[in-house]
Amino acid sequence: MLAPATQVKTPKTENPLAFDVENMKHAVKQGELGLSEGGVPIGAALVDSKGAVIGVGRNRRVQQGSATRHGETDCLELIGRLPASVYKDCTMYTTLSPCTMCSGAMILYGIKRCVMGENETFVGGEGVLQAHGVEVVNLDLDSCKTLMKTFIKQSPEIWNEDIGEE
Amino acid sequence: MLAPATQVKTPKTENPLAFDVENMKHAVKQGELGLSEGGVPIGAALVDSKGAVIGVGRNRRVQQGSATRHGETDCLELIGRLPASVYKDCTMYTTLSPCTMCSGAMILYGIKRCVMGENETFVGGEGVLQAHGVEVVNLDLDSCKTLMKTFIKQSPEIWNEDIGEE
Ligand SMILES: [Ca+2]
Ligand SMILES: [Ca+2]
Ligand SMILES: [Zn+2]
Ligand SMILES: [Zn+2]
Repeated sequence: MLAPATQVKTPKTENPLAFDVENMKHAVKQGELGLSEGGVPIGAALVDSKGAVIGVGRNRRVQQGSATRHGETDCLELIGRLPASVYKDCTMYTTLSPCTMCSGAMILYGIKRCVMGENETFVGGEGVLQAHGVEVVNLDLDSCKTLMKTFIKQSPEIWNEDIGEE
Repeated sequence: MLAPATQVKTPKTENPLAFDVENMKHAVKQGELGLSEGGVPIGAALVDSKGAVIGVGRNRRVQQGSATRHGETDCLELIGRLPASVYKDCTMYTTLSPCTMCSGAMILYGIKRCVMGENETFVGGEGVLQAHGVEVVNLDLDSCKTLMKTFIKQSPEIWNEDIGEE
């Protein structure tokens, strides 16, 4: 990444909602599927305020040779076209701090909450999200950290490519 | 969009580089193709510092039912996987001020310049780009404004969907 605007690293959210802990499992499952495919193991799920899963997605850099299908954008792409009102009632769950592209996609569509699994491996656009009024929650889950540690140890060059680093 | 962080609307760049005016034609062509397909007429081109076109793309909301293929992201997706060094030598040309998603994609990959056709129709993530050190140029082209005006008059609801508005 370019020298970022002031980096914001959301601290672990104490006493997270059971609703968020429960819904994160959909995103974690996608990350696990990605790892089993040899892909960057980041998953996402878009869930409405009643807990209905609108869609799920995972990073497809390896699987599809994709430069733009991160967990969150893959989720939004697989869902397809939606009116703005649906997004505004949703939370994006993602196993890792969302990069600037994915943060920008959430802002574009007015997604008002973002719940991440962890931000120890990578810190993305949390500051941009917060500047645009998005609520950011960090569950700080060991399971999500382990997924990334396993992958980065195996394939550091793919991970660097995914975050625009060399 | 959510209430944005301080909106930045780049003024028309006086005396733009002939290099930029010339390269914008690749993006405009994509926008025109999009219009002919009934799509949102926004095009993009990624061009290196020698003027080689690395790739082009256009908004595919209508054509592919896509929620994430804007001009710039379609361009990055069609190009496929690249090492960071290639992006860092490139300028992204786009017929319209890039939304927050596309701005975030440029920041992610370290694209250091963004040249837009206009920002009268829409103002996207120019402030986010500038905060991350990206050079932003506004050619303020009537041809680009006319493309958008024609489309928005025909299909205002599709345009609102594309920018997350209702
Ligand atoms: Ca679709
Ligand atoms: Ca590809
Ligand atoms: Zn991302
Ligand atoms: Zn965009």
